[in-house]
Amino acid sequence: MSTDDTTDASTESESRCGGATADSESKCGGATAETSANAESKCGATSDGSDEEEVGATVEDFDADPGRLVAVGLGPGQPEGMTAKARSALADAEHIVGYTTYVELLPDEIVEGAEDIYDTPMCGEVSRTEEAIDRALAGNSVAIIGSGDPNVYALAGLALEIVESKGATASMLDFDVVPGVPAAQSCAARVGAPLVNDTVSISLSDHLTDMPTIESRLHAAAKEGFTISVYNPWSRKRRDNYAKCCEILLEHRDPETPVGVVHAAGREDERIEIVELGDLPDLGETDLVDMTTTLLVGNEDTYVWDDRMVTPRGYETKYDY
Amino acid sequence: MSTDDTTDASTESESRCGGATADSESKCGGATAETSANAESKCGATSDGSDEEEVGATVEDFDADPGRLVAVGLGPGQPEGMTAKARSALADAEHIVGYTTYVELLPDEIVEGAEDIYDTPMCGEVSRTEEAIDRALAGNSVAIIGSGDPNVYALAGLALEIVESKGATASMLDFDVVPGVPAAQSCAARVGAPLVNDTVSISLSDHLTDMPTIESRLHAAAKEGFTISVYNPWSRKRRDNYAKCCEILLEHRDPETPVGVVHAAGREDERIEIVELGDLPDLGETDLVDMTTTLLVGNEDTYVWDDRMVTPRGYETKYDY
Repeated sequence: MSTDDTTDASTESESRCGGATADSESKCGGATAETSANAESKCGATSDGSDEEEVGATVEDFDADPGRLVAVGLGPGQPEGMTAKARSALADAEHIVGYTTYVELLPDEIVEGAEDIYDTPMCGEVSRTEEAIDRALAGNSVAIIGSGDPNVYALAGLALEIVESKGATASMLDFDVVPGVPAAQSCAARVGAPLVNDTVSISLSDHLTDMPTIESRLHAAAKEGFTISVYNPWSRKRRDNYAKCCEILLEHRDPETPVGVVHAAGREDERIEIVELGDLPDLGETDLVDMTTTLLVGNEDTYVWDDRMVTPRGYETKYDY
Repeated sequence: MSTDDTTDASTESESRCGGATADSESKCGGATAETSANAESKCGATSDGSDEEEVGATVEDFDADPGRLVAVGLGPGQPEGMTAKARSALADAEHIVGYTTYVELLPDEIVEGAEDIYDTPMCGEVSRTEEAIDRALAGNSVAIIGSGDPNVYALAGLALEIVESKGATASMLDFDVVPGVPAAQSCAARVGAPLVNDTVSISLSDHLTDMPTIESRLHAAAKEGFTISVYNPWSRKRRDNYAKCCEILLEHRDPETPVGVVHAAGREDERIEIVELGDLPDLGETDLVDMTTTLLVGNEDTYVWDDRMVTPRGYETKYDY
């Protein structure tokens, strides 16, 4: 398992619309994450130190009454994109666990109010999630955070899988999920109304989903007139996935189909461009497209007007305006 | 154009996860909406009073310097589901325009702070949106609100289409979109982690998209292992769409596939059930499934554990836990 791939997997929701870029920010390997997890672990999270992260403590290892675990979606990342419910969930948590870049984006009063903050670099999402669970099993009220929504390529599922693997239950921890604004919607808002109809989101990371499956999904989505949000479009290790995606989209859609390209939304290096599908292949090797970029691919009806992408709902067929 | 259909169209994002139900709350026909729009219009919105709503004033009819227009997504509907950015956008707006049920959910200080609130019942979304645009063209700072996200079956696109039809531009009005938590993610959070992978959202309303297209999209999504959020699953006028949807899903997926059924999320009559795909057809005629319900259909890997739906990302194939 390569660092880059781990990074992809751990940041499918984190790396966009306020997120961090794997390429520019990730300096750590799986091993580093292990180390930092072990060094900072207060709840018995263990690892064999190999590339494979291993879950250590089980529910039997904890004497205390279980605490609580909540997975909180921060939305785009900046405090202004957070819901009031997410903010109060963080204020109520004794421990906050997350990827360093997101912890750094938290409002001061949240950070100061927390008993302990546990953050690790952009990798080792399994050990980070286990650390959060161990702390909850040890009796603490714990919030595990990520940008976007915990259900969009994020940690809600991994948390439940690890809780189960420890012989614990979600009910035992009052496990809850606080939703956030997903990257697709945060980025769509920046280009107007590109997704206002049936829509699909597909990640080009083949770390956890094999490429034939991804290709088959791209064909189906492009054929059926869905608008498409493409997550994780490009990394040094996945140039080919990007090229293949462009090729498939162009097989089914006009080269003039508008595509919203949103790079590092909400961050200092944010760049937003509306391009044509035919231009997409050449953008792969530019710094506009990387792990922090989300592509919003229009359907047959999508058009560009006044620097906005508009995907009509079909009102124009029913109303006279 | 039937009232019921208008309602479907106007509430594809509004009618779920904190939204209102067409069946229980909509008492109005298109004509009522017209009347209320005309009675309350201060900015020259006109209508021919027929079933077809018609856009009246154009940019030439306004002498004032244009104001501002922002489309704000409230998320699930309750104030706690709103982002800080949405809240400040509403605080900055002189006029707030929206569907009555959402206006009633706004925090008191927002309502008291606004110069004027214009709300209409659940229908006439075109005249309501035009009213917002006319008020902005008349020089006011206007926020048009809806639950969920303005890009998810919502009004961001309609607003841009009407602005264009009036000979105005988005830039002229500093048109902006403030994203919110979509219904799919609000509902998914309530059942655990049902959508944590490539996913599709499809509306069963054939008011603006024809049924053959909807059926074809359902086939494609079910075949390709996407998780599927089904919006607008049922209304009195669309029993058949629901039955057809169940039939298509069962053609491609095991009858034991978990389906999260979330009715009126965040409201007093909220009901959440996790059922099997095979049970779905019979639920169509129960009060669990109506316009306020969102269906979250698992994929081949989705399982139910401790009353939660879990769609694995695939970590278990890479990590030992």
